[in-house]
Amino acid sequence: DDTMAPEDAKASKGPVLKTPKGTRDWSGADMILREHLFKTISDVFKRHGGTPLDTPVFEMKEILAGKYGEDSRLIYDLDDQGGELCSLRYDLTVPFARWLAMNSITQIKRYQIAKVYRRDQPAIARGRFREFHQCDFDIAGVYDPMIPDSETLCVITEVFEALKLDVTIKLNHRKILDGMFAVAGVPADKTRAISSAVDKLDKMAWADVKKEMVEEKGLAEEVADQIGEYVQNKGTIAETMVYLKANEKLVANDDIKAGLEDMGLLATYLEALGVASSQISFDLSLARGLDYYTSLIYEVITKPTPPTLDADGKPVRRSKKEKEDPANQVGSIAAGGRYDNLVGMYGKKQIPCVGISFGVDRIFTILKARAEKEMRTREVDVYVMAFGGKEFDGMLPERMSIARQLWNAGIRAEFSHKVKPKLPAQFKAALDVPLAVIMGADESAAGQVRLKVLNQGKEESAESNNGELVNKTDLVEAIRKLLI
Amino acid sequence: DDTMAPEDAKASKGPVLKTPKGTRDWSGADMILREHLFKTISDVFKRHGGTPLDTPVFEMKEILAGKYGEDSRLIYDLDDQGGELCSLRYDLTVPFARWLAMNSITQIKRYQIAKVYRRDQPAIARGRFREFHQCDFDIAGVYDPMIPDSETLCVITEVFEALKLDVTIKLNHRKILDGMFAVAGVPADKTRAISSAVDKLDKMAWADVKKEMVEEKGLAEEVADQIGEYVQNKGTIAETMVYLKANEKLVANDDIKAGLEDMGLLATYLEALGVASSQISFDLSLARGLDYYTSLIYEVITKPTPPTLDADGKPVRRSKKEKEDPANQVGSIAAGGRYDNLVGMYGKKQIPCVGISFGVDRIFTILKARAEKEMRTREVDVYVMAFGGKEFDGMLPERMSIARQLWNAGIRAEFSHKVKPKLPAQFKAALDVPLAVIMGADESAAGQVRLKVLNQGKEESAESNNGELVNKTDLVEAIRKLLI
Repeated sequence: DDTMAPEDAKASKGPVLKTPKGTRDWSGADMILREHLFKTISDVFKRHGGTPLDTPVFEMKEILAGKYGEDSRLIYDLDDQGGELCSLRYDLTVPFARWLAMNSITQIKRYQIAKVYRRDQPAIARGRFREFHQCDFDIAGVYDPMIPDSETLCVITEVFEALKLDVTIKLNHRKILDGMFAVAGVPADKTRAISSAVDKLDKMAWADVKKEMVEEKGLAEEVADQIGEYVQNKGTIAETMVYLKANEKLVANDDIKAGLEDMGLLATYLEALGVASSQISFDLSLARGLDYYTSLIYEVITKPTPPTLDADGKPVRRSKKEKEDPANQVGSIAAGGRYDNLVGMYGKKQIPCVGISFGVDRIFTILKARAEKEMRTREVDVYVMAFGGKEFDGMLPERMSIARQLWNAGIRAEFSHKVKPKLPAQFKAALDVPLAVIMGADESAAGQVRLKVLNQGKEESAESNNGELVNKTDLVEAIRKLLI
Repeated sequence: DDTMAPEDAKASKGPVLKTPKGTRDWSGADMILREHLFKTISDVFKRHGGTPLDTPVFEMKEILAGKYGEDSRLIYDLDDQGGELCSLRYDLTVPFARWLAMNSITQIKRYQIAKVYRRDQPAIARGRFREFHQCDFDIAGVYDPMIPDSETLCVITEVFEALKLDVTIKLNHRKILDGMFAVAGVPADKTRAISSAVDKLDKMAWADVKKEMVEEKGLAEEVADQIGEYVQNKGTIAETMVYLKANEKLVANDDIKAGLEDMGLLATYLEALGVASSQISFDLSLARGLDYYTSLIYEVITKPTPPTLDADGKPVRRSKKEKEDPANQVGSIAAGGRYDNLVGMYGKKQIPCVGISFGVDRIFTILKARAEKEMRTREVDVYVMAFGGKEFDGMLPERMSIARQLWNAGIRAEFSHKVKPKLPAQFKAALDVPLAVIMGADESAAGQVRLKVLNQGKEESAESNNGELVNKTDLVEAIRKLLI
C-alpha cells in the first residue's frame, strides 16, 4: 500500500501537460506563416483548375493494407470500432485513389492539404514528426502523353516562384532507368532492388552504393560499374538526351526509346509553358523509392546558396547563419511522378495519374529561417483606446461603439477589456498594432477622435505625438488610407 | 477448404470501397461552399484580434479523461503507441485548456476550426457524424465583468450577418438559474440534475420534463411546478430583468442578485456594440448540458421562417421546400458560455474563459439548401482553346504559352490535354467556365486571339458568336475587365 502513495500524490497534480510524442501545436507567428504558405500554394493549384478534396483522417484498414510495403508497420491503427478496423491515413495518395475508384471519377485535377500520420521514430530537430502535413496536387485522366506531366512541372515552378525559393527540379524516367539497368546486365527480378540502391546516391558515396549492389544484392561487379558510369550523367533535358542517344547500346533498348520520346515531348512542352531549362536537371541517378511510379519521376531541391566571393574572387568563409540555413540542410522539398496503375488496384478501371507532393513542413522551416525579423504574432490593425483626467470614466461604451464601426468596415480592431484602463497599459497592449484611435472626453463630445501611427516596439505616450484629429464619421476612410 | 473459396474470390476483388462509418469525403461544390463558410467565420474572428491555434488530432488519453462525464465512452482510442495512450480529440475546448496551461498563457483570443471525433451512433440524415467540424472562438484572461462576454456575443451577430442568416441568441445565466432552483426549493445536491432536465424543454413538453423531475429525480411536485412557472419567462434582457426584479423572493437571492448585475452590464455593453435587443432572447429555460459553465450561457437558433400570408391575411400552407428547409429542422447552430474553472484543472493558475462554438456542419446544411441553383464545382475563369481546318495541328504549344501568360497574371485557366482536341469537346470541357480564349492559326500569326463570353450551360459553337479579337499583349487586361 505504501508504494501507492507517491503515485497518488503525482496523480493529484493532474495529467502531464504535453502533446503526444512526435506532434506539436501551431500558434502565433508560426501559424500565420503556415497559413500564408498554404494559401500561396493552393492559389497556384486553383489557377490550374485544381479542386480541393478532403477525406476522413482515418480510412478502413484494408484500404491501406498492402500499399506501403514494409513501412506498413508505421501505420496508426484505431481500437476496433464495432467491427470496423480503421487506420489513420499514411499519405494522401491512397485516399485519393480510393475516392476516384469509389466515385467512378475518370478525370480531375484535385489538391489536398492535410495531416498524415506515421508511427516513426520522431526527429523533431530535423523536422521529422509523427503528425505532419502533406500537400498534394494530382491530375487524373487519360490524356495525350506528357501534357499533364508538363503542367504538373509548371505548377512546381510557379509555387516556388511565388515562395521566392530558388530550386532545381531533378527528373528522370523509370523506363530509361530500367532500360539502363537491362542494358548494363541487371537481371529483371533485381530491377527494383537496384533502383532502390541507386536512389541512395544523394545521401551515400558511389563506393558504398556499389558495395550494397554487389555484396548485398548479388550484382556482378562489372554490371555495377556500368551502372555507375550511366547514372553519373546529368544536365538539361537536351544535354542528357544527347548523351543517351550517342550510346548505341542504350538507344537500341525499347524502354529507353519510349522514354526518350517522352522526354523530347516534355522538353517541347516545358518551353511552351515558360519553364526555363536552367530550372531542370535530367539526372540519370534519380530513382525515387516508391514502387508505383511508372514513367516520369521528379524531386525538387533548393539550389545551394552560391559562395560569396571576395575582391580577389575567392570564396568568403560561410557565416554561421549561412551554414545553418535549413535550405542547405533539408533534402528534397517536393517530389512526385506518374503512377498509372494505382487506381486500378481499387476499381475496375485503370485511371492514369501524375502528381506532386510538397513537403510543406520542410518548406515552412526554410521560410521561417529566412524571415529576417521576428514576425507578428497577431494581425490587428487598430487599437481603440481612451484617456482622461480625474473625471475619466474609461469611456467603455464609446470605445465599444468605435470598435463596432471598424469591425463593420472589415478593419481588425481591439480595445481594452477593462472599464477604466490606464493609458500605459493600453499602449502596451497595442505593441504590435500599427494604429491607435485615441479618445478623449472633449474631442469625443465634438464628434472627433485622434488617429495615431504607433512607433512599433518603442515607448509611447499620448504626449509624444498626439496623432491627427479625425471626425468619427471619416474614421474608417482615414484608417484605410493609412493601412494601404 | 471448400468454404474458403468464396472468401478468396471476394478478396480478389479488392477492399470494399467506403469511408468508415459516420465519416464522409468533401469535394466539388460542397467543398467550395465549406471553404467559403470557414473563411467568412474566420474573417470575423480575425477582425476581433483572434489568432489561430492548431493542435494535434490526438491528445494524451489522460488529458481527456474525466472531462466529458458519461460521454467519455464516445472517445476514440488509438492502439498503444509504445507506452503512450492517445485518444482522438472529442472537442476543441479541452485541447485549448491544455495548451493554455502548458504554455502558461494568461490572456488570448484564439480560434480553431478543426475536426473532432465521437464514436456515436451516426445519423447522417440529421447531420450527426462521427467525424465532424467544430469552429471555436474563445477569450481567455482576467478582465472586467461581461466585457469579453459581450464581445463574444457581438462576434456571433457579425458571423450570422455575414452569412445572411436570421438568428436569435437565447441566453441565460447559471447563477440566476441556480438561484431560481434554490428559491423554488431544489436541494443543492440536485441542482445540476434538475438543470439537465430543464435543458430538455426545447425538445420535450413541460409535462414530460416535470415527470422526469418528480419521478426520476425525486423532486416534490410543488417545487417542480414553481420551476415550471419561472422558466417559462423570456423576452429582451430588459423585460426578463423586470420580471425577476418584480419577484421579491427571487431578487432576495444572492446568486440572482449577482446574475442580475451581470445582465444589466451586458445590456449596456450590447447596446454600445450595436447588437440589437431584438436579436437576443433572455430565456429562463435555457440551461445547457455541460457542467463547466459558470455564469453566462447562450445558444443560437435560426428564426423560423414567418408564415406567408394570403390576401385575407391567412397563412398560406407551407410549400414542400419551406417544410424541408433545414433552418426549420436543425436545433441550435452555435452555443457557448463562460467557463472560469476549466483551465485550472490542468495548470496551477485559473484562467477565466468565455467562448462560442459554431456548429459549422449544421450551418453548412442550411446554406446548401438555400443556394438556389446548382453551385459550380470548380472555379476556372478561362478555357484556352484552338480550332482550325484540315491543316489544324492543335496549336498545343500556343495554347500552353497563353495559359502560362494567364497563370502568371493570377487568372485561373485550363486548356485541353489533347494534342489535337476537337472544338465541341473543348466547349464541353468549358461548360462551367465563363470565358474562352479561342485561337486560330491566322489570328495567332497576327498576334491575336478571340475572347468570348460563354453561354454557360447552353450549346456553343465557334460560329454562333465569334467573340472579340484581342491582341495577345492586351489579353490579360481584357480578361480582367470581363471578370470583374
